[in-house]
Amino acid sequence: MAIVLGPNRYGKAETRLVRVHRDGDTHGLVDLNVSVALAGDLTATHLTGDNSGVLPTDTMKNTVYAFAKKHGAAEPEAFALLLARHFVETQAQVHTAKITIDAYAWERLGPHSFQRRGDHTRTTVVTVSEGGTQVVSGVSGLVLLNSTDSEFHGFVRDEYTTLPETTDRILATAVDARWRHLRDDSDWGPSFDNALAAMIRAFTSTYSYSLQQTLHAMGAGLLESRPEIAEVRLTLPNKHHYLVDLSPFGLANDNEVFLAGDRPYGLIEGTVTRDDAPAALTEWWL
Amino acid sequence: MAIVLGPNRYGKAETRLVRVHRDGDTHGLVDLNVSVALAGDLTATHLTGDNSGVLPTDTMKNTVYAFAKKHGAAEPEAFALLLARHFVETQAQVHTAKITIDAYAWERLGPHSFQRRGDHTRTTVVTVSEGGTQVVSGVSGLVLLNSTDSEFHGFVRDEYTTLPETTDRILATAVDARWRHLRDDSDWGPSFDNALAAMIRAFTSTYSYSLQQTLHAMGAGLLESRPEIAEVRLTLPNKHHYLVDLSPFGLANDNEVFLAGDRPYGLIEGTVTRDDAPAALTEWWL
Amino acid sequence: MAIVLGPNRYGKAETRLVRVHRDGDTHGLVDLNVSVALAGDLTATHLTGDNSGVLPTDTMKNTVYAFAKKHGAAEPEAFALLLARHFVETQAQVHTAKITIDAYAWERLGPHSFQRRGDHTRTTVVTVSEGGTQVVSGVSGLVLLNSTDSEFHGFVRDEYTTLPETTDRILATAVDARWRHLRDDSDWGPSFDNALAAMIRAFTSTYSYSLQQTLHAMGAGLLESRPEIAEVRLTLPNKHHYLVDLSPFGLANDNEVFLAGDRPYGLIEGTVTRDDAPAALTEWWL
Amino acid sequence: MAIVLGPNRYGKAETRLVRVHRDGDTHGLVDLNVSVALAGDLTATHLTGDNSGVLPTDTMKNTVYAFAKKHGAAEPEAFALLLARHFVETQAQVHTAKITIDAYAWERLGPHSFQRRGDHTRTTVVTVSEGGTQVVSGVSGLVLLNSTDSEFHGFVRDEYTTLPETTDRILATAVDARWRHLRDDSDWGPSFDNALAAMIRAFTSTYSYSLQQTLHAMGAGLLESRPEIAEVRLTLPNKHHYLVDLSPFGLANDNEVFLAGDRPYGLIEGTVTRDDAPAALTEWWL
Repeated sequence: MAIVLGPNRYGKAETRLVRVHRDGDTHGLVDLNVSVALAGDLTATHLTGDNSGVLPTDTMKNTVYAFAKKHGAAEPEAFALLLARHFVETQAQVHTAKITIDAYAWERLGPHSFQRRGDHTRTTVVTVSEGGTQVVSGVSGLVLLNSTDSEFHGFVRDEYTTLPETTDRILATAVDARWRHLRDDSDWGPSFDNALAAMIRAFTSTYSYSLQQTLHAMGAGLLESRPEIAEVRLTLPNKHHYLVDLSPFGLANDNEVFLAGDRPYGLIEGTVTRDDAPAALTEWWL
Repeated sequence: MAIVLGPNRYGKAETRLVRVHRDGDTHGLVDLNVSVALAGDLTATHLTGDNSGVLPTDTMKNTVYAFAKKHGAAEPEAFALLLARHFVETQAQVHTAKITIDAYAWERLGPHSFQRRGDHTRTTVVTVSEGGTQVVSGVSGLVLLNSTDSEFHGFVRDEYTTLPETTDRILATAVDARWRHLRDDSDWGPSFDNALAAMIRAFTSTYSYSLQQTLHAMGAGLLESRPEIAEVRLTLPNKHHYLVDLSPFGLANDNEVFLAGDRPYGLIEGTVTRDDAPAALTEWWL
Repeated sequence: MAIVLGPNRYGKAETRLVRVHRDGDTHGLVDLNVSVALAGDLTATHLTGDNSGVLPTDTMKNTVYAFAKKHGAAEPEAFALLLARHFVETQAQVHTAKITIDAYAWERLGPHSFQRRGDHTRTTVVTVSEGGTQVVSGVSGLVLLNSTDSEFHGFVRDEYTTLPETTDRILATAVDARWRHLRDDSDWGPSFDNALAAMIRAFTSTYSYSLQQTLHAMGAGLLESRPEIAEVRLTLPNKHHYLVDLSPFGLANDNEVFLAGDRPYGLIEGTVTRDDAPAALTEWWL
Repeated sequence: MAIVLGPNRYGKAETRLVRVHRDGDTHGLVDLNVSVALAGDLTATHLTGDNSGVLPTDTMKNTVYAFAKKHGAAEPEAFALLLARHFVETQAQVHTAKITIDAYAWERLGPHSFQRRGDHTRTTVVTVSEGGTQVVSGVSGLVLLNSTDSEFHGFVRDEYTTLPETTDRILATAVDARWRHLRDDSDWGPSFDNALAAMIRAFTSTYSYSLQQTLHAMGAGLLESRPEIAEVRLTLPNKHHYLVDLSPFGLANDNEVFLAGDRPYGLIEGTVTRDDAPAALTEWWL
């Protein structure tokens, strides 16, 4: 038996980039958080500290800024593809590059004035390796709520079950979704906007008997409307809203007054996929 | 010399309340974080644990929920006034009640579907005491950015000064503002919306030579447009965007590529007030 | 009626400083978060953007680092005094300097190896103005728990009171305490260590009928043992531990199984003071 | 082509449990954050909202509390195994149970008094499925720093490289490590304590030419001293400490004054494993 080095990677995480696009007096604004992770032949530095195969993480940060100047960074997926390919193509010892980008949305207030939206973050994970290229888009921090049209009953009861059945409850979640593209050359902006809209539409229009059912509807809705997407994976916390018992105060509570709980919370995770989707290049979930 | 009890207060903090207003099939949604703090004759419990003058903080939480059912909680200022007056009027030993409310905004997606906005939090601090009633409204988490029309030069230079002067920079801040009302019966919703709009308008339209100048313009803009408001206090972090030096890579950077810094940050705090404003009831800043 | 500038100040917040003291092969480590706020004659920059009286916040940051090199920064109170006096003495337009420092503790693992403790943060707020000098020390993030010797009963009951009385409960809190010194030349390190020990001793040894009683015991215990301290102000969240009802499962729960709640929480705030303490220079609480 | 349900699971996340062990007047304290995730035949609820195979997440929470009463929860690995086996054995439709526990450490102050340590969190992930049982222990939030004995040079230079070489720097990281056990019946407490000590010892005693080298030394050190462990996976942020340039102020800086940076940061991830370790039951990293 020997002790050996297993899978490994390294990079620069959370390079904060703001890119202003100046078109005369009217400016555009891109606000990104970029992380780079490289894998390849890195045994020497692990075993002896020989860094002759190590591109410094500081260089990755510099590359992000230089590429933002040269190429613009308008769409996170395209910018991530540029960066990932650069590292794989220019560093022989690097076999795989993974670029993760969080993009923060701003509302325009004027020709060069903006307000941060805060209602969701657009995410991207691009992997370029010898096996191929994989583009994953996604969203996090999108909080949705239906104040009715949600029931929960007919579930398993065991000796530890005390939950009453309900035919009317609040259903709320903070959507964390990621979807894998079939190709690496989509029209990224409209693809994202429409994928988001399809999920929101499915959330609001589904009369729900479980958050799992809503999850499936959101995933299926996205895939039905977006032929360029192979599969979608959703992580949906069930943000419980507890009906407050007002009977000690002689008051009825017809689903009007709720305590919004912090912890614990239900957590529903699931994939919806095309049955003919090619396998994923690398694991990215579960 | 003796060791004695000084100023004190107690209460229930961060009661999370969601109130659904059901008007047939169309629902309204109010999402609040309510904190109660009471002061008065509380010496006995401090010195001996005699709780005969202590209304439990659990009761304050119950009161928040019961009042939400009875009175609706549509505007945070009005709801806070109801709560504060209730505690002062029904508990003889309570001299002062301070109610703090954070209100989270939701966008309507359908008759009973909502998306959390996330772009700012509306705040309220109401104090009711023997000396009078004070209503403070405010906003936090409102992030604004001008990508030009900001200069900074002509400042003091001492032996530790290395900052170059600039005639074009990004100016960005996360607005934390609070404003004190002259009366306790305003039309709270429009008052808030218009105060917010006045500050945003001043931020975007001010050609700025310092964040202090912008702060003053925001405060003055609010007071000029809102006669019901006595004074406004602003806390504005200067969210520094550092121009990245791309010259080692043979690239110019004409205010296009920035590093968005986390820490440290400038912090500009100031009050703008009417010169005939009555004194504040209690300190609430600095 | 005119709209005028009221109280204001500005500075650099959260300058992160790590200072290594090298004594041969054995190193010391100081880890601080330093914030500077200056007030004085700042009207011009607010009204017109004339910065001729504005020392840049970038210069404050540089001063923190330069002073750390020159003077060492071993005790946060002494370092804050040096900084505050520097700004007031060298900038004629500055009337008041307030320096806030958070100090993070590290455990020594070897001559130049350390592990961050994480069990509390030591805080300092020093104010130097024309009216005098004020030194406040403190602690935050110190989480204490007694699993018994805490009761709560005999409290006020009104129509919204449902809380049962209890003669045995968990009492837990996250101590946020600040204490004002009588002088500006104490032996800061031992003073802090002993003040902390006195509060912890009072917390653990008080058989408590209310968190207010425990707060008072902690404050009085600190003042009794530390003659150099004028007054102490404590903010104590009541970190509720709810007894879980296990009766549906045929199990007793004799104060053994608890749900640790997040929100809401009780919040107890109070001052304990010497009756002959001089007035505070500036407000720093409530 | 059809749209189908892919991998999925659900459960109750972050059930906060405090368990007091009462042995006369001397109490023990266990403070856990427990998450349950179940996978199995869950198609019906996703497709139609038929919940006849869904054990409510509320029941999982109840089970955590009931088991804490019955079985005590002294060691997180043992408690997680009990819970995971319960769900797989009693719910025919459940094929896999994954229990994740974060355990917070407390220092004893007296027979029933405690102070939260805050210097690290002990983590556990137990998976029980048809394929076997897997126990992973770990640690997060352990922050270590060497103020010397770290160099970084001899690295790759490309056109975006500006980093100077260094022969003396601070090396600091926040250790996130997880290690997989060979068996499911270790003596969990001592195993954890000794694994932690082995990693800390390796960190402090390694003269480091790269954080990768330190990572490997930590993993190898753990495996050499703990025969019950198959492999360890480490995620080590490089918490950069930037030497401050004090030359504009006429001051030298011989590795004494540093700016502790927030973002970006290097991120080094790697596995160290026995070459004869059996394959992992499920993926849990990269």
